[in-house]
Amino acid sequence: MNITSLNNNRVKYYTKLLNSKKERDKEKLFIVEGDHLVEEAMKENVVKELLISDLSYDHYKDVDKIFVSQEVMKKICDTITPQGIIALCSQKEMYDLTTLNRLLLLDNIQDPGNLGTIIRSADAFNFDGIVLSENTVDLYNPKVVRSTQGAIFRVKVIKTNLLQYINKLIAKGVLVYGTSLNGKNLNAILPSDNMAFIMGNEGNGVSEALMNIANDNIFIEMNGNSESLNVAVASSIIMYNFRK
Amino acid sequence: MNITSLNNNRVKYYTKLLNSKKERDKEKLFIVEGDHLVEEAMKENVVKELLISDLSYDHYKDVDKIFVSQEVMKKICDTITPQGIIALCSQKEMYDLTTLNRLLLLDNIQDPGNLGTIIRSADAFNFDGIVLSENTVDLYNPKVVRSTQGAIFRVKVIKTNLLQYINKLIAKGVLVYGTSLNGKNLNAILPSDNMAFIMGNEGNGVSEALMNIANDNIFIEMNGNSESLNVAVASSIIMYNFRK
Repeated sequence: MNITSLNNNRVKYYTKLLNSKKERDKEKLFIVEGDHLVEEAMKENVVKELLISDLSYDHYKDVDKIFVSQEVMKKICDTITPQGIIALCSQKEMYDLTTLNRLLLLDNIQDPGNLGTIIRSADAFNFDGIVLSENTVDLYNPKVVRSTQGAIFRVKVIKTNLLQYINKLIAKGVLVYGTSLNGKNLNAILPSDNMAFIMGNEGNGVSEALMNIANDNIFIEMNGNSESLNVAVASSIIMYNFRK
Repeated sequence: MNITSLNNNRVKYYTKLLNSKKERDKEKLFIVEGDHLVEEAMKENVVKELLISDLSYDHYKDVDKIFVSQEVMKKICDTITPQGIIALCSQKEMYDLTTLNRLLLLDNIQDPGNLGTIIRSADAFNFDGIVLSENTVDLYNPKVVRSTQGAIFRVKVIKTNLLQYINKLIAKGVLVYGTSLNGKNLNAILPSDNMAFIMGNEGNGVSEALMNIANDNIFIEMNGNSESLNVAVASSIIMYNFRK
């Protein structure tokens, strides 16, 4: 199949999926762009269809392929210089993260680059999963997907009511740590297979309701002038510290 | 002084400074936006002039103030929702970083958010300074400035020929580490007052010419699937590891 018209219905469908969370959630699909991410998606068997404008990507087998003009590719791509290949992928299923014990709990993270970077680090440091509060940026936002560098296909992520979820974790015996300047030094915390860390919004930190139910609070040692770290940096330092 | 016209020369001057590195370098000035950054700039005595559209910021003393309409403020601001205050600031002087010994050397970092985040972490973990290669993103890019969260006023940063600079460091006896997957584990490196770390470009890592002259290479322990970390995360973990 070949598409050269910008008005083609399939082109409109892809553009909608790229720009609209609602559409992505309705279809339970999302889009990844570029050589590296498509390769990772193919490995995980989540690709429904490939869109190709550069014939050097014609080597993928056992998958539906649509060839499109560069103009069409440019319209669909989120990046300024498209790499000539796009994959339409299935969204992840809802994992039962209550069976997993080393978790990061993200409270209202808004920057797509931060969320993607956190997922990338969770993959690198073998964290079991990530729980997003309902007001956190969409996991399938194109910038989030890109920043994960493919880790989105490997890390278990769910979105849920974080307050209820934390209550369940605590009832189960998982130690849930908030992050705050008044907490215990990260160095003083013993590694465990039952631990979870709440990371807060870029501007406001962890919300009070969640701070109140956390078992304890930690902080990352800094010099006196600094008040805070970027949330992706803080999350990554914590996960590196407890890596497996 | 009050400005309400978008065609005012001062408005044009600010817009140029915001958008053009060339203009910023010619004037040796840059712009910071928002309450928090302006407060940090005032503390460091680098503010030449304030632009105010929200009268609640009228409390700053001993500084030239221009009052502007919200429309004018919006035109000059890089952010979508301007906070009602802008400061025109002097660029830093060129520091002599050869007298400083715990350094981060950034080779062709392109993402403004990454550079800003690295500077923020350098401030938090008391690194002595940061050296930018000539092809690194501009330090005074509005997104870089914003991501530093004010650390730009405290951390010593220079831009220079990185190859020549590293040769000087090595001649002086500073241990210069490259970062690569074939390096020594970060854990195995002893802290020292004479160490510097080369961090590479987002896509391509550290350039070969620099890798060849480094004294040694380090890597950050990750699981087998991951090939790399975000460069701001990797830089921050290294600086946290050797914090003072």
